[in-house]
Amino acid sequence: MASTDIAAVMRLSAQAFTLYRQTTPTSRALFLDTIAQHIEALGDALLEQASAETNLPIARLTGERARTTFQLRMFAAMLREGSWIEASIDHANTAKNPPAPDIRKMLVPLGPVVVFGASNFPFAYSTAGGDTASALATGCTVVVKAHPAHLKTSSMVAAAITKAIAQCQMPEHCFQHVTDGSFETGKALVQDEHTRAVGFTGSFSGGRALYDYAAARQHPIPVFAEMGSINPVLLLPDKLSKEAGLLATQYAASITLGMGQFCTNPGLLLAVKSEALTAFKTALASAIAQVQPAPMLHKGIIAAYRQKSQAALDTGCASLLQSGITPTSDMEPQLLITTVSGADFLQTPLLREEVFGPYSLLVECNDMAELMQCWAAVSGQLTTSLMGTDQDFTNYPDLVQSAMTYAGRVVFNGVPTGVEVCNSMVHGGPYPATTDSRFTAVGTAAVKRWLRPVAFQNCPSALLPAALRDENPDGIWRLVNQQWQR
Amino acid sequence: MASTDIAAVMRLSAQAFTLYRQTTPTSRALFLDTIAQHIEALGDALLEQASAETNLPIARLTGERARTTFQLRMFAAMLREGSWIEASIDHANTAKNPPAPDIRKMLVPLGPVVVFGASNFPFAYSTAGGDTASALATGCTVVVKAHPAHLKTSSMVAAAITKAIAQCQMPEHCFQHVTDGSFETGKALVQDEHTRAVGFTGSFSGGRALYDYAAARQHPIPVFAEMGSINPVLLLPDKLSKEAGLLATQYAASITLGMGQFCTNPGLLLAVKSEALTAFKTALASAIAQVQPAPMLHKGIIAAYRQKSQAALDTGCASLLQSGITPTSDMEPQLLITTVSGADFLQTPLLREEVFGPYSLLVECNDMAELMQCWAAVSGQLTTSLMGTDQDFTNYPDLVQSAMTYAGRVVFNGVPTGVEVCNSMVHGGPYPATTDSRFTAVGTAAVKRWLRPVAFQNCPSALLPAALRDENPDGIWRLVNQQWQR
Repeated sequence: MASTDIAAVMRLSAQAFTLYRQTTPTSRALFLDTIAQHIEALGDALLEQASAETNLPIARLTGERARTTFQLRMFAAMLREGSWIEASIDHANTAKNPPAPDIRKMLVPLGPVVVFGASNFPFAYSTAGGDTASALATGCTVVVKAHPAHLKTSSMVAAAITKAIAQCQMPEHCFQHVTDGSFETGKALVQDEHTRAVGFTGSFSGGRALYDYAAARQHPIPVFAEMGSINPVLLLPDKLSKEAGLLATQYAASITLGMGQFCTNPGLLLAVKSEALTAFKTALASAIAQVQPAPMLHKGIIAAYRQKSQAALDTGCASLLQSGITPTSDMEPQLLITTVSGADFLQTPLLREEVFGPYSLLVECNDMAELMQCWAAVSGQLTTSLMGTDQDFTNYPDLVQSAMTYAGRVVFNGVPTGVEVCNSMVHGGPYPATTDSRFTAVGTAAVKRWLRPVAFQNCPSALLPAALRDENPDGIWRLVNQQWQR
Repeated sequence: MASTDIAAVMRLSAQAFTLYRQTTPTSRALFLDTIAQHIEALGDALLEQASAETNLPIARLTGERARTTFQLRMFAAMLREGSWIEASIDHANTAKNPPAPDIRKMLVPLGPVVVFGASNFPFAYSTAGGDTASALATGCTVVVKAHPAHLKTSSMVAAAITKAIAQCQMPEHCFQHVTDGSFETGKALVQDEHTRAVGFTGSFSGGRALYDYAAARQHPIPVFAEMGSINPVLLLPDKLSKEAGLLATQYAASITLGMGQFCTNPGLLLAVKSEALTAFKTALASAIAQVQPAPMLHKGIIAAYRQKSQAALDTGCASLLQSGITPTSDMEPQLLITTVSGADFLQTPLLREEVFGPYSLLVECNDMAELMQCWAAVSGQLTTSLMGTDQDFTNYPDLVQSAMTYAGRVVFNGVPTGVEVCNSMVHGGPYPATTDSRFTAVGTAAVKRWLRPVAFQNCPSALLPAALRDENPDGIWRLVNQQWQR
């Protein structure tokens, strides 16, 4: 798409924003609900199209569609509940010296948001996924750059949104769909003067490039890029000694789920050498050996997987523990579990990089001190998991504080795959997991990426937005003179 | 200061962070209260030192000191109240398909924060000012680069903080004071690998330079830079026709307050030509003509003021309306009110730049359409003010929506100078007022700049932070299973 076309798209988005930002939260809630209905109305045809484009099985896509519509409805419910707007009122105080004016604050939308969908979630992190749903919820207009790996699926979902726009009488261009997949188009979208924020889910190199374009603008804009993560899992000594077999089964399933094509895939296991670890390795190898490969998302993904997993083995210090059943087609990956010593891991930065796909590296440490060093050597993560007994947590009391520092989500005795959509979820984390650890891409708090506060000083009551009027017409939770009330 | 020294300072800050982040909110509240006490204990000596270094009068500094200690105690109160931590709990739900795990979320501190104080607020936006107080409140450690224009004042305040550290048994290096004023030192502080965020108040060129260094890091970090603002004031037709004289008096006082050395100084007045505007000009000129100049903060500030105000006049389209009483010393500025036509304003971008000091430009528009164009031509602002009657707001219903888009705070029938410290305040705004419009530098929400969310999945109760335990030991407001409660 020519850059002049992008300029036209973003100009329309900016024009639509002047109308869309004035819609009520309730009307936007209905709009999101209607989008969900129209996505469901696409029926099996949508699932079949997505499966044809992504190689993902229908069962998985059925679940992902449910997640996507659930998410849209969650944001609708959030809009109706109202506390998301962070309404806050401090009445005038003439007794103060100097007298305090009446100050009221709420959040307002930033403006047009550009969304780059992810290839591995054609519904939940794409066209009508979390970024789009959260941005539309706030009153921001959205321009989605369709992922070229599932362009037809994306167009079907875009059509569902367009239907909802018409049905709900929303501004025509509050959502637009850009189908040109070129890198230059993405760059032009981020650089356009009307763009006010960017949401991205994908590779480190892609996310960092967009971040750099945005930061170099005359008017810099926020980019929330969710990038790679290897999601370190600590297999703690007492837990390992008691449940080596169970851990192996649990993690074999998590590593290979969806051919490892999740940003929360456990790509790194850390453990201390012991008889129990040997038992774990044996059990893990035996489970992995039986895993049937399935086609990956697209040619670029499998090519990158082959290159990166080979590069890890080529370091010379990581050795193969076990591979899965031999692939029979070009699109199927070779499942790989590799191992390395703690010392070699510390000396080989390449081994800390994500290998996107069914690959996991087990680091065999001499002791817990070395394990803690290996953990600390890994950069910011979406998740980290602690597999431990009460005894382990008593023996190593600093684990939780460290985990909080390294990752956006700390999983206890579970697997990191599976990101629950709820108020308390954090799908984010320190760089390079994301470009801004202060935000999350999943859960209601995802809207905070697209909102800014505005204060009104001595505003006549008739001019105040509903959320800030004394009578609180929508009955929302607010902070009034330092007291939470509704 | 050599870059190796900066590395040592930041390493100490990172080490202190591992301890300081584990302190309880209550203990940090006591710490902030104690800092306030030790600042007050410095007594008149502090005021006299600050006056000697900044030329600001004792009365003004007395007020600013009160604001500073009030601010420290406000953050202490916020810590004791507890909702700042955004605790959120979603219990496990086995009835869901797939079953939902137990997820709990709260905010945690980012890490070492580097603070650059402002020359125009030696207390409230400097060493123990809003950035430092908000960062220390969250559990972040702080390194303040003292402003070279009030180094001794800064050192006195730093000593008060150091006393509070010892008294409260906080980690020794949770606060550090860097007295080397060089540009290279500032750059090294922002670039250091241990720095996790930056707070800055000052010029556009300074703030943007720090933002660019931070964005170009291998691990980019957030910079909240509060930079210039010209704070457009709309003198609406009906208001002007009724209260021209009153408006002139009110704005003459706001423009010249503290020799215009406020980021909220009203540097731009917008009005439609009329007899009332002529009366306003006459009254404003008469008020300004009587204003006695006072010494500005430092030589750099007055040199920049002379250069920038001259450059505005040199455009050839802005003409002098009135100057103040002629200065008698090198450090005193010439107060200047200039005027320009709406058409010339639109064609002359230089006139939209901040002239820091007692300078204001009145734009005389042909009609409201031109006025709206002039307003829209100005970039992002900390504040914008609407001086209007009910009739004005009825006649021009789009004003409030536009104002919300252009600025972080919208003032109705008042002056922008004076930034109330309260929950509802927003001292921020779209670029270039700040580098990130999603945050505020004043008010309790200022802490959000230094915090990131962390989620705990299926965390054993004994390992949960107090804020996330079911029993809610501190009785704080939380979002539990989608219900606000405490």
